[in-house]
Amino acid sequence: MRLVTYLGGSVRRVGVVRNDRVFAIDASSMEDLLAEGEAGMARAARAAETGSGEALADVRLLAPVLRPRKFLGIAANYQSHIDEVKAANPDYVPPVHQRWFVKLPTSINGPYDPILLPPEGSELDWEVELAIVIGRRCRRVSADRAHEMVAGYTICNDVSVRDWQRRSPTIMLGKSFDSHGPLGPWIVTPDELGDPHALRLRCLVNGEVVQDGSTSEMLNSCWEQIAYLSTVCTLEPGDVLATGTPKGTGGSMKPPRFLKPGDRVRCEIDGIGAIEADVEKERVE
Amino acid sequence: MRLVTYLGGSVRRVGVVRNDRVFAIDASSMEDLLAEGEAGMARAARAAETGSGEALADVRLLAPVLRPRKFLGIAANYQSHIDEVKAANPDYVPPVHQRWFVKLPTSINGPYDPILLPPEGSELDWEVELAIVIGRRCRRVSADRAHEMVAGYTICNDVSVRDWQRRSPTIMLGKSFDSHGPLGPWIVTPDELGDPHALRLRCLVNGEVVQDGSTSEMLNSCWEQIAYLSTVCTLEPGDVLATGTPKGTGGSMKPPRFLKPGDRVRCEIDGIGAIEADVEKERVE
Repeated sequence: MRLVTYLGGSVRRVGVVRNDRVFAIDASSMEDLLAEGEAGMARAARAAETGSGEALADVRLLAPVLRPRKFLGIAANYQSHIDEVKAANPDYVPPVHQRWFVKLPTSINGPYDPILLPPEGSELDWEVELAIVIGRRCRRVSADRAHEMVAGYTICNDVSVRDWQRRSPTIMLGKSFDSHGPLGPWIVTPDELGDPHALRLRCLVNGEVVQDGSTSEMLNSCWEQIAYLSTVCTLEPGDVLATGTPKGTGGSMKPPRFLKPGDRVRCEIDGIGAIEADVEKERVE
Repeated sequence: MRLVTYLGGSVRRVGVVRNDRVFAIDASSMEDLLAEGEAGMARAARAAETGSGEALADVRLLAPVLRPRKFLGIAANYQSHIDEVKAANPDYVPPVHQRWFVKLPTSINGPYDPILLPPEGSELDWEVELAIVIGRRCRRVSADRAHEMVAGYTICNDVSVRDWQRRSPTIMLGKSFDSHGPLGPWIVTPDELGDPHALRLRCLVNGEVVQDGSTSEMLNSCWEQIAYLSTVCTLEPGDVLATGTPKGTGGSMKPPRFLKPGDRVRCEIDGIGAIEADVEKERVE
């Protein structure tokens, strides 16, 4: 199934997509639907079999999860990206342990909404990533059983302001400007997506391919990520984990290349689809 | 006013405390009450004037905010703490810019609930901190007007697992084990607390004073913190900002001293009160 959050008219709804039509599911939010577990997924499946739905083209898709309790990203999880960062900055020390940072939930953005270049930052960069959406409350899950905790997968553009990222080793604020967490266009359930470690992922800027990798390159698998995080904290339905990015980020190019107003950024992942955004200069009063 | 979240019987309520009695306020959560702004505060004031309430001793206080969208902490915001960290680790580089990290919201713990020592960590440490609770949705607030965004203040013990904190420069996971974010016992509104930069704050372990400082020592004031954060992200009602800790943390002692099961940790701040927790070994199946 492909699960969406969308505006039908001016009403925010959760739904399921089938044959380019959206069928509403009776739930107040995606997080609440996911918290129902198997019963919620059964309700979603039934929704696609009743009524005529609405044309996907007639609704506005929002980020599939709007208020996750956690929106986390793992740094340096593709060797090709570690290599390019190290080439651009010889002092860079790659992680020994999984290196997790937070994207503040207020950064979440719709799949086709503009990415804003704030006047306070200059080095606006892209990172296409496979994002895991958690489906079950869990703590201390083994890697063997981690797949059971997954509701599905979506696309994240882990937009980063490199000059702010360098200001602090915690990197959190450089990852968290409002609008810098595009997610979508939907959550694809595991039964439909298959192996999450065999997906091509690409980022295109103005039609030019800048990143082209495979989730098979992950240094820590999705299962190892869930196991590690859940050692520390309870994961909850709706939590979003961005699983890292391959080479091809703008900050590591020679010379560095950053997003500017008028650019168009597209992130694609096999079996999920694409999200796409215009870059706009943020207007500040 | 002193605003609380509590269990009255088995029902979770928001309330206001007056003369050791708790008066329920009709609101689904503290975040929702705060989002009402002045109208919510007026309702809270009226609640304390009607009915007889319940004895404070008869209810169980929970963390005043249970599901904030953000729970952030600033590192190295007291010179005395920077000095002790540097003495213990000569390689330590103090921040130039404000250094913010996240405590995951799942770490939030009640004011008197036990702090759990997880089997995966060993260096369990305390940090008494004044915490700001945001009352108004805002972005790009100047330091001059930042005080208008504050709903009130509470006490945070920024419990830290130092061995996990060292694993990653983002320090987030070392700050975020479940139960490691005690908050409370209530939110004291600004009119009642007065100047937040003139408060003595202390931490006691088994009755011994280990931290004894003043919020006047903050290197970045509460207002500068709100201004800096809101440059990046929208702050929202219920967001919690822990404003840093003075010297006296266990990890900087010679030799280092960490919390062990059976210890009792008390964090006190003038004009707010105290939170207090037993340290227990976490039981894992």
